[in-house]
Amino acid sequence: MLDQLFNPKSIAVVGATPKEGKVGNALLKNLIAFQKQEQEKGRGKDRHKDSVRISAVNPKYEEILDVKSYPSVIQIEEEVDLAVVAVPAVNVPEVLEQCGKKGIRNVVVITAEFKEAGKEGAKLESKLIRLSDKYDLNLVGPNCLGIINMHAGLNVTFGKSIPAKGNIAFLSQSGAFILGVIERSRAVNMGLSKVVSLGNKAVLDECDFIEYLAEDDETEVITMYLEDIRDGRRFMDVVRQVSKKKPVIVIKSGRTEAGAKAASSHTGGIAGSAETLRAAFQQAGVVEASSIDDLFDFSLTLSRFRSIKGGIAIVTNSGGPGVMAADAIEEFGLEPASFDIETIENLRKLEVANFYNPVDVRGDADSAKFGTALGIVASDGGVGAIISILCPTAGITFLQAADYVLDWNEQVPIIPVFMGGETEMETVERFKKHRITNYFDPMKAVKALHAVAEYSEMREREYAPPHHFKVDKEEAKRGIKAEAFKVLKAYGIPVPAYGIAKTAEEAVEIANGVGYPVAMKIVSPEIIHKTDVGCVKLRVEREEVKKAFFEILYRAEKYTSPRRIEGVLVQQLVEGGREVIVGMKRDTHFGPLIMFGLGGIYVEVFKDVSFGIAPLSRKDATEMIKSVKAYRILKGIRGELGSDIDSLVDVLLRFSQLSMDFPEILEADLNPIKVFEHGKGCYVIDFKIIS
Amino acid sequence: MLDQLFNPKSIAVVGATPKEGKVGNALLKNLIAFQKQEQEKGRGKDRHKDSVRISAVNPKYEEILDVKSYPSVIQIEEEVDLAVVAVPAVNVPEVLEQCGKKGIRNVVVITAEFKEAGKEGAKLESKLIRLSDKYDLNLVGPNCLGIINMHAGLNVTFGKSIPAKGNIAFLSQSGAFILGVIERSRAVNMGLSKVVSLGNKAVLDECDFIEYLAEDDETEVITMYLEDIRDGRRFMDVVRQVSKKKPVIVIKSGRTEAGAKAASSHTGGIAGSAETLRAAFQQAGVVEASSIDDLFDFSLTLSRFRSIKGGIAIVTNSGGPGVMAADAIEEFGLEPASFDIETIENLRKLEVANFYNPVDVRGDADSAKFGTALGIVASDGGVGAIISILCPTAGITFLQAADYVLDWNEQVPIIPVFMGGETEMETVERFKKHRITNYFDPMKAVKALHAVAEYSEMREREYAPPHHFKVDKEEAKRGIKAEAFKVLKAYGIPVPAYGIAKTAEEAVEIANGVGYPVAMKIVSPEIIHKTDVGCVKLRVEREEVKKAFFEILYRAEKYTSPRRIEGVLVQQLVEGGREVIVGMKRDTHFGPLIMFGLGGIYVEVFKDVSFGIAPLSRKDATEMIKSVKAYRILKGIRGELGSDIDSLVDVLLRFSQLSMDFPEILEADLNPIKVFEHGKGCYVIDFKIIS
Repeated sequence: MLDQLFNPKSIAVVGATPKEGKVGNALLKNLIAFQKQEQEKGRGKDRHKDSVRISAVNPKYEEILDVKSYPSVIQIEEEVDLAVVAVPAVNVPEVLEQCGKKGIRNVVVITAEFKEAGKEGAKLESKLIRLSDKYDLNLVGPNCLGIINMHAGLNVTFGKSIPAKGNIAFLSQSGAFILGVIERSRAVNMGLSKVVSLGNKAVLDECDFIEYLAEDDETEVITMYLEDIRDGRRFMDVVRQVSKKKPVIVIKSGRTEAGAKAASSHTGGIAGSAETLRAAFQQAGVVEASSIDDLFDFSLTLSRFRSIKGGIAIVTNSGGPGVMAADAIEEFGLEPASFDIETIENLRKLEVANFYNPVDVRGDADSAKFGTALGIVASDGGVGAIISILCPTAGITFLQAADYVLDWNEQVPIIPVFMGGETEMETVERFKKHRITNYFDPMKAVKALHAVAEYSEMREREYAPPHHFKVDKEEAKRGIKAEAFKVLKAYGIPVPAYGIAKTAEEAVEIANGVGYPVAMKIVSPEIIHKTDVGCVKLRVEREEVKKAFFEILYRAEKYTSPRRIEGVLVQQLVEGGREVIVGMKRDTHFGPLIMFGLGGIYVEVFKDVSFGIAPLSRKDATEMIKSVKAYRILKGIRGELGSDIDSLVDVLLRFSQLSMDFPEILEADLNPIKVFEHGKGCYVIDFKIIS
Repeated sequence: MLDQLFNPKSIAVVGATPKEGKVGNALLKNLIAFQKQEQEKGRGKDRHKDSVRISAVNPKYEEILDVKSYPSVIQIEEEVDLAVVAVPAVNVPEVLEQCGKKGIRNVVVITAEFKEAGKEGAKLESKLIRLSDKYDLNLVGPNCLGIINMHAGLNVTFGKSIPAKGNIAFLSQSGAFILGVIERSRAVNMGLSKVVSLGNKAVLDECDFIEYLAEDDETEVITMYLEDIRDGRRFMDVVRQVSKKKPVIVIKSGRTEAGAKAASSHTGGIAGSAETLRAAFQQAGVVEASSIDDLFDFSLTLSRFRSIKGGIAIVTNSGGPGVMAADAIEEFGLEPASFDIETIENLRKLEVANFYNPVDVRGDADSAKFGTALGIVASDGGVGAIISILCPTAGITFLQAADYVLDWNEQVPIIPVFMGGETEMETVERFKKHRITNYFDPMKAVKALHAVAEYSEMREREYAPPHHFKVDKEEAKRGIKAEAFKVLKAYGIPVPAYGIAKTAEEAVEIANGVGYPVAMKIVSPEIIHKTDVGCVKLRVEREEVKKAFFEILYRAEKYTSPRRIEGVLVQQLVEGGREVIVGMKRDTHFGPLIMFGLGGIYVEVFKDVSFGIAPLSRKDATEMIKSVKAYRILKGIRGELGSDIDSLVDVLLRFSQLSMDFPEILEADLNPIKVFEHGKGCYVIDFKIIS
């Protein structure tokens, strides 16, 4: 669908001008210049470039920079594939109207002063959306820097420089940041395929581009800088598919934004947007970069290789940095290589200081010895990647050593950590030409390998569809406003036997059915902290039921009018068991974020909880339970019997389904849930809904 | 004491040779070359350089590289301040003997093949130590690269390059790594004052050099790479003093080395060398670098400024990276700046997009507008440091913007994050000249500021001397092998009333004194898991004491011989209270590492413990208790009464003293300790010593 946007044969620059320093001038110049440059490089044979025709649109001129100028796009004789718009904001709707009429399907709106500038701008932006709908426009922006397709010699931006060419696509919600990335990409030879400045994302957003890039042969890695993800669900669906084919690396700002401070539920208090995103990224298979350096390192490394088939070996001429790398491998939970007997024997013969991993060829080794060691290790079938560390000793010539790295890199991926300074720039440049990054710090090499391992693990993960139960949705609907437990029962979530009594006699009747002793609680939307005001009685025996009923009512009436009291809950008393909590907070962009944790101290003090975005699969739910630290307690420590984890998985799944079915539930806590030993199930003791 | 080592007037190169490629050749060349170079630069007026005289020592030659050569140092006519030794290992002792006789006090032994090469080498090394003692030699190495004093034009290494000159000292236990650092120091203009390759640290170690560098006017920051710290106690004492004057930054390899897996106590199982080091660094005031990049960034930043007097402000022309920096500030627990009304008013007038922190001057701002914003923010009294972020937009000229940064940097420290690539190298070089590092990644700027804040906090910390109680050490000594509780009592650590009964009658007598019900346990060094084998009876009433006594003995005799049974402990039953654990593991280098945590699940599952190195001060002990996450539980949550924390501080201090007094105790657990509400104290219920 976006093929024409990135490979137009004819482009109109609306708002082109001969005036230096104006955006409309820079745009036109960039288009012309980049094309020329590409042609001069002799790559003009490409089918796209020879045929790209540029028109200017500006009623004041007949020609701008040797390009013919028209009063509007309507007058352009030939078909136009792409219009780039840099006219004042108020004029943009009219331009779109003309584009629509002319049959132009792709529009990049550079102009700013839309939604980001306040109410008036937002109104104007909604006009753009309506017009895009009307004419079925692929609209990029507004308020953006433009787009670049390095493989088609297309530079539709007003920026000063163009990136290095390669197989990494970059989408960004910040235009200015793109400029920095472009410059940097040249410095580190991070080759880019396509660059998109998303701007206000009025029409096309990251999901549209990710989908397109998934099918783009010139893109191997998709990277992006995002500030918000509006359609979280679609984002997850799209990325879940795409990440199976290509790595999707995201850096997002605003990660630590605190959760709503005044949240009314436990879950609401703990779950902020950072938790939602982390869960979403994890479930969808995003590789998250937590800093700009990481974004670059991960992209470059994942554009080289996407999996590590074996352990990680270290070959070094200096013990210290070797141990630092080994430390980092352990810290990041990566697998260190253990060598074959043959490898060890060969290394022993080579007389290295340490012939286990990390291999230390010693400070007196020359480049050839280093190369031989590298070859021995690279030939070990159990080695999946090598970090090759060199300090600039007298015996080592970095350029020679680099040859060995480049050679053996054909066999197994090698990350060089040649610890030189300016005198070794030639080697660094040499590596760069092969798209290999040289690090000064072994830690960074390990971090990059960790990103590869993480991606590889996510890619292998099988997608389990969300679990679906047969439930009584209608019954639950009736319960939502009136009787919370009814909702749970309707969804097959186990609750203690109960009834709601309007009279003391009813209370006795219910209690007789439920079995003694019972728990009794007020049912009133006005009384939240029931225990604090004496409206809860636990362990009530047969002879005490009536008295308890009246006492609860008496106390309740101090806090609310009789009309707001719906009765007294008489409930089976569930004793013993371990307390867990399951909760939900609805995220505007991603939907229900489900939380799991052990109750009490574990949630409150240790914040030892896990998150998943509904709908959950059985695998998701199981993972959530297993990933809290206190899982060991659930499994049973010191010979204790383990808890009934299957029953908790079931609750999580049913609750996930409930959360999906009722968008009116904003937050909810099943707290506490009492879980018993294996086979004995669990009960939701209390349930709070905020709708 | 080391002044002559770093500022010698006469140097002898023992093992000098005209043969290219030999260490003895490189050493002599370097000495000559660096001196010449310095003189040519016209800085030869320095009192040191003009007068440094070089002699060679090699019986085979009369002159080497125009330097007079002697058969041994003895024959050198004049006094020699420093001998550099690069002869085969077996000959080094003889050379030292000659140095001693000649009255040379400073020796740098480059030669390797000592301790690091096995038994024979270790023997040879102990000869060096003996000779150093005999002649009171300041011996650097052996197995080292040498030393450099940039401010005296002294290069006593065989490396190929010399570092940039500045005020940062670097000590390293890895010679090869120094070569990398030297090259890198030039690339990033990290100016070094003195470089020391510590080698095997046979005589002089890091502590000696830290002490010297503390008084060295040319050194402002002391950095080091360490692989081990042999005299941990001295290291702590020295650094505690020195870090008040100058930042001490350490990167240590082997951090994740797992604790002894087969440790017999709880504490032993949790506390590894990583925990010891972290506690030691923290208590002594070390700034720890966890990667080589950090080492550089922290050093460079701390050589610029050492404290941040106010909040951290961000001035940016791109929202995204600004938010990333703000995120990182929050993540690192740093204080973001909040502006004066005047500042906000001035920023509003300037028409920036956000006039609170982070200040966004927007992508269309020119350098002057950016500079003005920077000035307004820098003039705010509440701003302690500024991160100034620039993307290379059309309006911005980095070089111009850099001028503003340099200007306002006089007022308040500014960390530039100019996000450019190769086209902006000139600006980066400009900053470098002013010893200012430009980062591409805002995260790194924040990390560097965090190191400054950390140092500043540690420097301000008042040193509290360890607490000392009057105790009955002799009584404790008698208890250590026989009766664990006696040890605690002798040190004033509260234990429940108890006695050890040899007969059933004695048991009743003790129980009568202690009060009913009592707890009864076997006392036998052979029975560790007393409960598991039925040798513990809790809640024993008066009439059950005799029966319990015989039952315990009966069961015990199944597991051990009667001769190994010392009796039955009859103990006051302490019920209720919260369980905490205090433990100790003796580190070979640092001494007793004290651990504190809440008992049971908190230690076992969450590893929620804190560490301190004995002897503890009252402040240390209080900090340890406060720094576990579960401290909130001790303080009392949800209206519960808080626990008696003062009594726990007291136990920690007394236990710390006990650990210091008895080096034969290798590990110990006070587990559980039951602590009651404020004012009601605590009791050590069980005590395990491994000696």
